[in-house]
Amino acid sequence: MLLLLLLISFTCKASEPNLQLENAQTKDAISNGGDVDRIEPPNWWIDFETDALQLLVHHPDIGDYSPSISYEGVEIVKVTKAGQSPNYLFIDLIISKNTSSGTFPITFKNADGQVLIQDYELKSRQKPAGAYVGFNSSDAIYMLTPDRFANANPENDRIAGMNETKVDRANGYARHGGDIQGITQHLDYISNLGFTAIWPSPLLTNDMKSASYHGYAMTDFYQVDPRFGTLSEYRQLATQAQNKGIKLIMDQVANHCGLYHWWMRDLPFKDWVNLQENFEKHREHWDNAHTINASHRRTTNQDLYASQYDKDGNSEGWFVSTMPDLNQRNPFMATYLIQNSIWWIETLGLGGIRQDTYPYPDKQFMSDWAAAIMTEYPNFSIVGEEWSLNPLLIGYWQQGAENADGYQSHLRSTMDFAMQLNVVEALNETESWDKGLVKIYEGLANDFHYASPKDIMVFGDNHDMSRIFTQLDGDVANTKMAIATYAVLPRIFQMYYGTEILMDDFENPGDHGLIRTDFPGGWDGDAKNAFSGKNISAEEKDMQRFVSELLNFRKNSKAIHEGETMHFAPFDGVYFLFRIQGDETVVLILNKNEKPISIDLNRFSEMGLNGKTLRNIFSEDQVIWKKEMTIEKKGVQVLTTN
Amino acid sequence: MLLLLLLISFTCKASEPNLQLENAQTKDAISNGGDVDRIEPPNWWIDFETDALQLLVHHPDIGDYSPSISYEGVEIVKVTKAGQSPNYLFIDLIISKNTSSGTFPITFKNADGQVLIQDYELKSRQKPAGAYVGFNSSDAIYMLTPDRFANANPENDRIAGMNETKVDRANGYARHGGDIQGITQHLDYISNLGFTAIWPSPLLTNDMKSASYHGYAMTDFYQVDPRFGTLSEYRQLATQAQNKGIKLIMDQVANHCGLYHWWMRDLPFKDWVNLQENFEKHREHWDNAHTINASHRRTTNQDLYASQYDKDGNSEGWFVSTMPDLNQRNPFMATYLIQNSIWWIETLGLGGIRQDTYPYPDKQFMSDWAAAIMTEYPNFSIVGEEWSLNPLLIGYWQQGAENADGYQSHLRSTMDFAMQLNVVEALNETESWDKGLVKIYEGLANDFHYASPKDIMVFGDNHDMSRIFTQLDGDVANTKMAIATYAVLPRIFQMYYGTEILMDDFENPGDHGLIRTDFPGGWDGDAKNAFSGKNISAEEKDMQRFVSELLNFRKNSKAIHEGETMHFAPFDGVYFLFRIQGDETVVLILNKNEKPISIDLNRFSEMGLNGKTLRNIFSEDQVIWKKEMTIEKKGVQVLTTN
Repeated sequence: MLLLLLLISFTCKASEPNLQLENAQTKDAISNGGDVDRIEPPNWWIDFETDALQLLVHHPDIGDYSPSISYEGVEIVKVTKAGQSPNYLFIDLIISKNTSSGTFPITFKNADGQVLIQDYELKSRQKPAGAYVGFNSSDAIYMLTPDRFANANPENDRIAGMNETKVDRANGYARHGGDIQGITQHLDYISNLGFTAIWPSPLLTNDMKSASYHGYAMTDFYQVDPRFGTLSEYRQLATQAQNKGIKLIMDQVANHCGLYHWWMRDLPFKDWVNLQENFEKHREHWDNAHTINASHRRTTNQDLYASQYDKDGNSEGWFVSTMPDLNQRNPFMATYLIQNSIWWIETLGLGGIRQDTYPYPDKQFMSDWAAAIMTEYPNFSIVGEEWSLNPLLIGYWQQGAENADGYQSHLRSTMDFAMQLNVVEALNETESWDKGLVKIYEGLANDFHYASPKDIMVFGDNHDMSRIFTQLDGDVANTKMAIATYAVLPRIFQMYYGTEILMDDFENPGDHGLIRTDFPGGWDGDAKNAFSGKNISAEEKDMQRFVSELLNFRKNSKAIHEGETMHFAPFDGVYFLFRIQGDETVVLILNKNEKPISIDLNRFSEMGLNGKTLRNIFSEDQVIWKKEMTIEKKGVQVLTTN
Repeated sequence: MLLLLLLISFTCKASEPNLQLENAQTKDAISNGGDVDRIEPPNWWIDFETDALQLLVHHPDIGDYSPSISYEGVEIVKVTKAGQSPNYLFIDLIISKNTSSGTFPITFKNADGQVLIQDYELKSRQKPAGAYVGFNSSDAIYMLTPDRFANANPENDRIAGMNETKVDRANGYARHGGDIQGITQHLDYISNLGFTAIWPSPLLTNDMKSASYHGYAMTDFYQVDPRFGTLSEYRQLATQAQNKGIKLIMDQVANHCGLYHWWMRDLPFKDWVNLQENFEKHREHWDNAHTINASHRRTTNQDLYASQYDKDGNSEGWFVSTMPDLNQRNPFMATYLIQNSIWWIETLGLGGIRQDTYPYPDKQFMSDWAAAIMTEYPNFSIVGEEWSLNPLLIGYWQQGAENADGYQSHLRSTMDFAMQLNVVEALNETESWDKGLVKIYEGLANDFHYASPKDIMVFGDNHDMSRIFTQLDGDVANTKMAIATYAVLPRIFQMYYGTEILMDDFENPGDHGLIRTDFPGGWDGDAKNAFSGKNISAEEKDMQRFVSELLNFRKNSKAIHEGETMHFAPFDGVYFLFRIQGDETVVLILNKNEKPISIDLNRFSEMGLNGKTLRNIFSEDQVIWKKEMTIEKKGVQVLTTN
């Protein structure tokens, strides 16, 4: 009922440009000295590969103004009015190679002689392009949902003027108060676990009426959500992470924005968002303004036989009713999104981007977007989210794939939902000819299809799926086996926060609110504190230790990062996988038998380990590789020659 | 016990060359005038692309003889003794382009002055190489198990001197007496159903002690099993089929032979079969002579990480204990198998080969084998059996696949076990987001991965899997929907004999003996006769009519053979797939709703059918394509603009 009232009061104003809400949230750390309401990107840099820059200026009737710039090396090459709204101007600049950093005024004049002056800054770049090294197979990535990780600053929990101000830790879909400082404060915890990268879900403003905590409905692509903190805090997180050897991955969304994005009240072109006509027609019913949801038939991206009807259904439908679908075929939108990504990489010194809902936007745009980024940052990494169990699709999206249609994504990494499930099934299923461990064996055999298997990201869980401990029916040994397998495979490894303390969603498996449970100790007064170890169970502590030993070993294992892989078809409920680089051999052994089992090692003679001493990375026991080996009861061993 | 006695009596003689059993079965229609026991190929032809021919000669102590030939254009270029047995000679000939057809003597002399003379014939080819047109997407293939189809000649049911002489129709694993004449007699029945090709399972001699009826354990690669008939009868079948526009597909096996193959008693080389040393060591326990079965880990063919141990386990292990695994890496074996295939193509004027257990032999050999055939017969077709649900593997084996390892199979066709199951699941599952008809939709989306989807073979059932009617739980409507779908997809269509009369294996689903039930009417005195229609149920007759109408339409539909494909994501329990070629559009409509449903046709506007009249190929009703269409209750419609 409250929601309905809010809606009515809001939609009454929606038919005219309404910047009231916007004013409540802008002017963060972004320097915007001058007369215009909004200029984006809010600053830029010299010395990019690409000398073009397109500014979006938003201001009442700015379309009637002519801009001019007098700054050496900077030239206005084109000015475009928006087709639908008088309140936009798009200015195409060329920034020559010899331009110096500095701030200059942009002068806007209209026919009536009115003048607006806006300062604009071109900064020097902080480090060479090649120094932006993206996540890769040497990395273990800690994914976290910032609202649920740690609330270091309770003062930013509620921000007046925003649509969702309530904080309610008892409600899985409300905001809980976690913030950027909370992440920064616990970087040592994450680093001690052996992680070398973090992937917080989006931190930009989501001024939505509900469920704003998840961050995927952005209402401003250039603003940090004040409830998470400030741009300056985001920068601190980036810097401190970098100092600790942790790459910062930004979760970006090019497919959609939140319904309360500022431009939804004043759309520049007729085709700024998909199904816009429909949206405009139903504007009075703001929250139900669209009528066509995405069909989610993602295979239309590859299907030779897909109808245009279904292609449009996937790429033009709205992801959900509160997320307008951006039209990346509008060249101004395309440029806006590309520049936005580059702005964040450069501003935060990012170590990677995770791109949400990858198969939904226009696929040619996605390729152009990634190509633009990789041109500026040749060592960068982007991973696209395609939730598919089909290796054909996982492979299609990775750069280097030999796609018959010639498509090149320029994505270094894709997500291995197929292998995620293979490992779970391998452990949950009773062994038989085609069940159990063979799922890992045959799943990995599909690697022949991938352009670069080691650059694919694998994981046991993430923010959208049941906790791995829940997927494995609460079996601790299986959970350890799964985590070790993901971490030793020729892959980038990713884990969801809290899995190191066996966080679960048994109460309602798959419930998003429950999956994204608060990390214990992240809030003042938490009875249980997994950062300090206070009141956590022996089982939880043991899993923390396990993850830490595993990943701290992984951190320095070239065999895991870059090594060759060899494995043997499972037999007698055991599976052996080897990673080899030079003198280093790492052996992953999974034993599903409840009892210890004696293994004839002749089978592995081609590995050349005979007579060598290996170390168990968990127990630190030494093992001499000879004719036979007894493997402890159900569980995982990781042995190394180093 | 009887088996044991036979074994002992047999194995007693096994250590010396024993041709007794062989003599009982040779000298069929193969002309072998002369002194040596065996010369293979038994004849050859002039005017092949390849001028090389390698003869295998088998005769006591033939290794001590030197062969000579005096015939214009024919030259002996090399003579090789077998490394292990004195009873073999391999003679490499060059047959020059200008050689005339004719018969000439090969003279063998030994140091003692003994002389053997063997006639050898070079025939003229009956038709140009390009006229051997293999099965393709215009074809519907009727697969049948000859022992179970029709017994036209009861006199050949039992052949004295062979290992299995019993005929017992009550035993699903015994011989039932079906034969080649039985197929020939019923070609009109097959043709009237609309089929354009037949694939009988193997017809060559399987002189095995049990289960010889299935034909996959060949004990002579050049002899028709006398219980099926003679070479002359096989030729008659080929000729009569051809006259009726039916391509004859031969089921060949390069991976293994039967344990009682004649050469198993006198192996020419130490490496003629895989794991031969092991076999020789245990020769006294003939029937259990090997100890290592194939691992059946077929993914080792592609797996980048497969150990040599597992690769060997798949390709060197014996398929089953009664089927020695041929070593195609022995160049004489390789040549033997290649020439054998060509001999049968040329002898029978084949319209295709189905190659059994495709991923088990040496894969490089399989490529060389297919390449050799396709070089001689550029329009020929070979389909390889890889029983895999994984499109990556289905795709890997098809000629033209862009495999990262560079492998080219030279196989025009592979088998679509994935799509087979997709259709079954589509019909058996209750509709939901990711269940039901979407299985067809998303399965077909994988076609983007295949080098040539239309050249892949699809089927509802075959000799190794439950009858489609059983897979679909005895639902006639679903069975019709499945068969129509397979037949309209951009594929080669194959059906197993008897599916047109709803043959089933409900009593013990998946039981091979039961799957291969006798075709009613194939035996004199059968109370029920599906050839004539006597005593078959209305439901069976209706299905026969359905298949006949479907396939006789398919026979002339260029849209199905060669057309473009377009389909729409399923909705409301219905699925529409279009095939389009020029003016002809064929529409497949599946409706899973128990009641009729009204469909808004605007969704399909891009198909350009508005206002056109279409014909239902089953009911012959005319339908005008307009705004809306009411689809009958659960079932399939096939509409055509022609």
